[in-house]
Amino acid sequence: MRQQASHRPDISQTGVLFDRVRTQTRKLTAPLLPEDMMLQSMEDASPAKWHLAHTTWFFEEFILKPRVGGYASPDDRFAFLFNSYYVQAGPRHARDKRGLVSRPGVDDVHAYRSFVEDAIRDLMNEDRDDADEIAALVELGCHHEMQHQELLVTDLLHGFSFNPLMPAYRDPGPVAVAREIPLAFTSHDGGVSEIGHAGEGFSYDCEGPRHQVFVAPYRLANRPVTNRDWIEFIDDGGYDTAPLWLMDGWAARQREGWEAPLYWWRQDDAWWTYTLRGPQPVNPDAPVVHVSYYEADAFARWAEARLPTEAEWEVAARDTPIDGNFLESDVFRPLPGGGFWGDVWEWTQSPFTPYPGFRPPEGAIGEYNGKFMINQLVLRGGSCATPRAQMRPTYRTFFYPHQRWQMLGLRLAKDAS
Amino acid sequence: MRQQASHRPDISQTGVLFDRVRTQTRKLTAPLLPEDMMLQSMEDASPAKWHLAHTTWFFEEFILKPRVGGYASPDDRFAFLFNSYYVQAGPRHARDKRGLVSRPGVDDVHAYRSFVEDAIRDLMNEDRDDADEIAALVELGCHHEMQHQELLVTDLLHGFSFNPLMPAYRDPGPVAVAREIPLAFTSHDGGVSEIGHAGEGFSYDCEGPRHQVFVAPYRLANRPVTNRDWIEFIDDGGYDTAPLWLMDGWAARQREGWEAPLYWWRQDDAWWTYTLRGPQPVNPDAPVVHVSYYEADAFARWAEARLPTEAEWEVAARDTPIDGNFLESDVFRPLPGGGFWGDVWEWTQSPFTPYPGFRPPEGAIGEYNGKFMINQLVLRGGSCATPRAQMRPTYRTFFYPHQRWQMLGLRLAKDAS
Amino acid sequence: MRQQASHRPDISQTGVLFDRVRTQTRKLTAPLLPEDMMLQSMEDASPAKWHLAHTTWFFEEFILKPRVGGYASPDDRFAFLFNSYYVQAGPRHARDKRGLVSRPGVDDVHAYRSFVEDAIRDLMNEDRDDADEIAALVELGCHHEMQHQELLVTDLLHGFSFNPLMPAYRDPGPVAVAREIPLAFTSHDGGVSEIGHAGEGFSYDCEGPRHQVFVAPYRLANRPVTNRDWIEFIDDGGYDTAPLWLMDGWAARQREGWEAPLYWWRQDDAWWTYTLRGPQPVNPDAPVVHVSYYEADAFARWAEARLPTEAEWEVAARDTPIDGNFLESDVFRPLPGGGFWGDVWEWTQSPFTPYPGFRPPEGAIGEYNGKFMINQLVLRGGSCATPRAQMRPTYRTFFYPHQRWQMLGLRLAKDAS
Amino acid sequence: MRQQASHRPDISQTGVLFDRVRTQTRKLTAPLLPEDMMLQSMEDASPAKWHLAHTTWFFEEFILKPRVGGYASPDDRFAFLFNSYYVQAGPRHARDKRGLVSRPGVDDVHAYRSFVEDAIRDLMNEDRDDADEIAALVELGCHHEMQHQELLVTDLLHGFSFNPLMPAYRDPGPVAVAREIPLAFTSHDGGVSEIGHAGEGFSYDCEGPRHQVFVAPYRLANRPVTNRDWIEFIDDGGYDTAPLWLMDGWAARQREGWEAPLYWWRQDDAWWTYTLRGPQPVNPDAPVVHVSYYEADAFARWAEARLPTEAEWEVAARDTPIDGNFLESDVFRPLPGGGFWGDVWEWTQSPFTPYPGFRPPEGAIGEYNGKFMINQLVLRGGSCATPRAQMRPTYRTFFYPHQRWQMLGLRLAKDAS
Repeated sequence: MRQQASHRPDISQTGVLFDRVRTQTRKLTAPLLPEDMMLQSMEDASPAKWHLAHTTWFFEEFILKPRVGGYASPDDRFAFLFNSYYVQAGPRHARDKRGLVSRPGVDDVHAYRSFVEDAIRDLMNEDRDDADEIAALVELGCHHEMQHQELLVTDLLHGFSFNPLMPAYRDPGPVAVAREIPLAFTSHDGGVSEIGHAGEGFSYDCEGPRHQVFVAPYRLANRPVTNRDWIEFIDDGGYDTAPLWLMDGWAARQREGWEAPLYWWRQDDAWWTYTLRGPQPVNPDAPVVHVSYYEADAFARWAEARLPTEAEWEVAARDTPIDGNFLESDVFRPLPGGGFWGDVWEWTQSPFTPYPGFRPPEGAIGEYNGKFMINQLVLRGGSCATPRAQMRPTYRTFFYPHQRWQMLGLRLAKDAS
Repeated sequence: MRQQASHRPDISQTGVLFDRVRTQTRKLTAPLLPEDMMLQSMEDASPAKWHLAHTTWFFEEFILKPRVGGYASPDDRFAFLFNSYYVQAGPRHARDKRGLVSRPGVDDVHAYRSFVEDAIRDLMNEDRDDADEIAALVELGCHHEMQHQELLVTDLLHGFSFNPLMPAYRDPGPVAVAREIPLAFTSHDGGVSEIGHAGEGFSYDCEGPRHQVFVAPYRLANRPVTNRDWIEFIDDGGYDTAPLWLMDGWAARQREGWEAPLYWWRQDDAWWTYTLRGPQPVNPDAPVVHVSYYEADAFARWAEARLPTEAEWEVAARDTPIDGNFLESDVFRPLPGGGFWGDVWEWTQSPFTPYPGFRPPEGAIGEYNGKFMINQLVLRGGSCATPRAQMRPTYRTFFYPHQRWQMLGLRLAKDAS
Repeated sequence: MRQQASHRPDISQTGVLFDRVRTQTRKLTAPLLPEDMMLQSMEDASPAKWHLAHTTWFFEEFILKPRVGGYASPDDRFAFLFNSYYVQAGPRHARDKRGLVSRPGVDDVHAYRSFVEDAIRDLMNEDRDDADEIAALVELGCHHEMQHQELLVTDLLHGFSFNPLMPAYRDPGPVAVAREIPLAFTSHDGGVSEIGHAGEGFSYDCEGPRHQVFVAPYRLANRPVTNRDWIEFIDDGGYDTAPLWLMDGWAARQREGWEAPLYWWRQDDAWWTYTLRGPQPVNPDAPVVHVSYYEADAFARWAEARLPTEAEWEVAARDTPIDGNFLESDVFRPLPGGGFWGDVWEWTQSPFTPYPGFRPPEGAIGEYNGKFMINQLVLRGGSCATPRAQMRPTYRTFFYPHQRWQMLGLRLAKDAS
Repeated sequence: MRQQASHRPDISQTGVLFDRVRTQTRKLTAPLLPEDMMLQSMEDASPAKWHLAHTTWFFEEFILKPRVGGYASPDDRFAFLFNSYYVQAGPRHARDKRGLVSRPGVDDVHAYRSFVEDAIRDLMNEDRDDADEIAALVELGCHHEMQHQELLVTDLLHGFSFNPLMPAYRDPGPVAVAREIPLAFTSHDGGVSEIGHAGEGFSYDCEGPRHQVFVAPYRLANRPVTNRDWIEFIDDGGYDTAPLWLMDGWAARQREGWEAPLYWWRQDDAWWTYTLRGPQPVNPDAPVVHVSYYEADAFARWAEARLPTEAEWEVAARDTPIDGNFLESDVFRPLPGGGFWGDVWEWTQSPFTPYPGFRPPEGAIGEYNGKFMINQLVLRGGSCATPRAQMRPTYRTFFYPHQRWQMLGLRLAKDAS
């Protein structure tokens, strides 16, 4: 991953960011038992303890080891245990066995975090020629950690979901009430546009280069698809109508037995869902979440619409506000307010491919996004679990079309009539 | 599948095409034993006998049944056995069990072919209001059958490859000698271009609508990557250098143990390959073939280049000749002559997605291409096994990135310097 | 495999046996298309063509190659293709890929058979010192081939069963009518008995040594369990009552979705079954067949009985007649007559383990039975597909507890009351 | 599971046993972090926390619920979470998902243990008509818990083994030194013997009924096979010599890549092994452990011997002392002293089948052993992890032939010369 060359983060602002992000991660694990932090329910997900350690290793591996003479890690073997997928950073522990690493325990991982935090702060306080580079790398590490904050809670939810006791991560408390927003489509002129990050503020390498695209005229919905919409789709037999589905989608639906979004079940003639607040009735006016690309695509076909391309989405979103209900550092921001986006990740129909002229940076850090540019689709927006600083119109996240455990939803598009 | 509305095939020309295509299919199976025609070596491949029957069912299902009053199939159960994937045409036999259908035998399948051919010819000779529609459907069925001609021989090769006796489909005979063509790159200006089929002559639904795209300036190689090039990649450790590979590609390479293209092996310090002519030494100047997208992409990265997009390819290819060595109805057209393309399918970096405004036709025939628009990548060009009438600059074939059993190769591209 | 030392087959009788067995094998394939002879529906089953070739290879490998100076096989590669599992006889083709060997074709395999037959007959006509050994080996090869005759037709039935056309191997013709035989139990005194082959006539190595066993008093049913009995079990919910099943049996039943014997289905309120005569109504008075050990064991528990041990079976059977309906060389002997056993293989509760003092012969031929002495259970008796010369009270066949594709049934036993 | 009818445990002795067993279980988990107690590394193994809870549920389900009027469990859902395989005790959580149950946490599980312990003690202090039955059930629950004590530490070792840090369960401390004992065989006369439990003291249902067997004369080794012996087998190519192996054994060896016992590796020209004391050099004079039946059987064939039957073992062992080095409640008793057995579980060649006349008790408790009587083999003896009260000559434990994670070894036998 690489920031745009024109972006230069300030070292003191970066220090503030670093403190805020590291504190927030720890806060997210406060309600958890050490036992909870061991959960790994599938290869795609990682234990909370691993997220705590991996985000720390990132600062150690890419900043401390190359730039602090004589730096000694608390345990040299952590590099093996907590490297995720950077082959150029050396061998690593099997991804599907992260749940089998009970030692170091949670206390030792917190000690590791503190140790590295101190070393980073010391480094940032030094008067160094490479201060700018360090600031840029620390900023990157902070954004990296924010990505893992979202994963930490969604992975946890998945892990908890195999427990018949259905634990609540947090007390349910009063739930904000959403209001029904009638569906409407806004027309957009086509033509040659520029998309991609322009170089001000932080961005990931895959958000650039900014480049020209040709977009045909289109229409885009004013809000994401809601649970109310989705229940209509279910009731109309959407999950049993093969012609609505892509071939691979239908195969996945059959193999997995999908009949509703992940975590939904019927109880006493109502739909319920399992959430970070524990079991909850499905809120009809909240955006539908935990649907795969295959389901999103079938839904759109059923609705006589389609998913937008990422260019269509970006062109439309950059002039619209993020949803106003947003509460920083609150993974439970649940319901749509008056904004346009930011309540749920939105599947686009665009495969995750490099923008024209994309070149990943040299070295292990170049593996950040580039090597995932196959078999995955771009989502835009951000969810209730996404830190505010991760939300911008050019941000491209990506998942495989069968994945559902993240906060994934959709918005409809149509060709210009 | 649907042809462009502006294209109107002539009924007598269509009759000629029908005779030619049906004869060619039969000719392709002439060298085979009934035993050979049972081979199904994986779910992706089908027995030759099944191809014979399925291409016949297509005419029966989409033309005879709906348009010939009182039409009676030789066996009603063939519709179940020989439907491939058209869910709207009813239930069908398990795809991976096609090799377990010994009855009807080859003789009965040939009788089925003759029966349907007679009925189609009778129908075309009638004076009917729907003669234009019939001609269009017969033309479609012929193109469909030509696609299966290519599959028939490539599936057969795959089936034969599990036999330690390494049978030759055809006598090796004298092999055309290829000459080494030095690699060079041609520059192309970018800008807004139109791509997609313009409506003259036959095309598949997914080739349209013709539409505008923005292409940045680029350079494209004058020839496909050759076996000589590929051996350099192998010798340089390309198969063992993880950073060259996409993440999913590296996983596939590890899981499958790939160390060379499919069908290659080392013998007495030379590379050999198994072909329709039996075992052959690898010809250094022929295009490399039987490589997956993952391998093609890794090769391009190793070569400090990239794969072209399909738009880049189409813009460049439409003004260049097909390779002159082409011999119609000869699956053994082996080696590059003076033309630009047509010796090997060429992986592009473009996922197979709908063109803007794409709408599949109504009914089962709408399943032809649309439902595959996920997880696959577009290849352009055509191979030694591709019938001449299938080769045009707008033709989009598509395969999964791990697949290798078709005649798949690549051409390099670069950004404008 | 080894015969008892005391058994000395006569060379001219062996020649008669050889001719009869070889002719019978060919006769069994007479109704088949070459396409049919390619069918391999699972790893446990082999194509008919492979059986033809493998039984021939056995004579070549164990007799001609070591004993005929300068013997040249029609094709040296057949040893690789047609060795089944004898690791000491060299490497062999993957067992699950036998259905992918289209060449040599059926005609070539018949030529191979004739070639080897001529060579064996020539050898037997020579005046040689090792004539006795040759006679013993030819006799062994004949018995080996008879085992494969049974496999040939049962494997074929399994292969055919994946064809929705449900082909009949043979014209159904008139079916013998079975009469209902009331179930009764015969008491047997216990004590020390001898079991195992006594050395007169042919036997396999695993039938000996004859040895003493202690058997407690027991009762044994007068007939195998019938389809009528089995339907009662089904109707009483036997397939849905977990406590009747062994743990691994229940897991298999759940995984495979068993609700009736293999090849059974409900149609118009009646049970039907797929047989070598094509689809047939289930005959209530015929022995149930195509049930796994798991099902047999659950049935016995449901019937408040148990399966016999092989010692109990052998002690009881050696004084009773084989069923009188038996027709040599007729795989369609279907229904019980007045005899005690021989209509169906009968699961015993005895795992297939070596008798005390068992030692397999030296060399590859020692792999015949010994290396299978794990994870399998002994069946006794013989089925409608078993050649008469394979049926004797000491004969031990063996299958895994989940297997159903052979002609496997059961008989009930009880402790002495 | 059922004790012999003639055995009547005393209520006050049973109370002592109960206290001792429950305390010992807790002691075994004392060195563990909560994180360690979550480890489930395969379906065969369970987390330590689950063992704590399941052994408690056993007392609740089979004693408190049916016999204490108005008994209320701390959490009714524990019955679902902590039932292992008793289908008659109701539905249960998926066995392979036990590692995903983070709540109840370790503290809550200890509270559950205390709650149930109090209730059991209260019940035993009451003056009741069913005091004898209660004593018998409590005794059974204690023996059940002792079985799980052994599983707890062996499962833990397996879980730890996936951690590259190779944690030590306990401080290595000084290791007892074993001395080399020369191999010798003791002759045993054959004849009719009685085996099985005679009814004094506790036993499991599958240890009876006591019954007569006929045993041929045999010889039995004076000690288990040692690591020194096993290294000879390795060095002689035992793992690469197919004819030594059973067919299924060779397949397992190939599939799993076995080249030494579980947990062994080569380092600096020496064999090391991972143990509960952490990494240790292989002690040549200790019994080999962590070998599958397949390996044990191949070893015996290589040594020109065989494994004993369980009757041979029992007849020989009942007159010999347990190894004198035994230390109760010490899982680290490592090395053979002067006794005959008790240092390692010893594979026999006997499949785990019912003794003649075996009838499991009615109800869920009848599932204890009976439903496992297929596909497994009997081991006799006991290991360093086996509580002393579990060790008696009639005790039959059983595992699948591919399993290695328990403390499994072997002793050689031969036919009488």
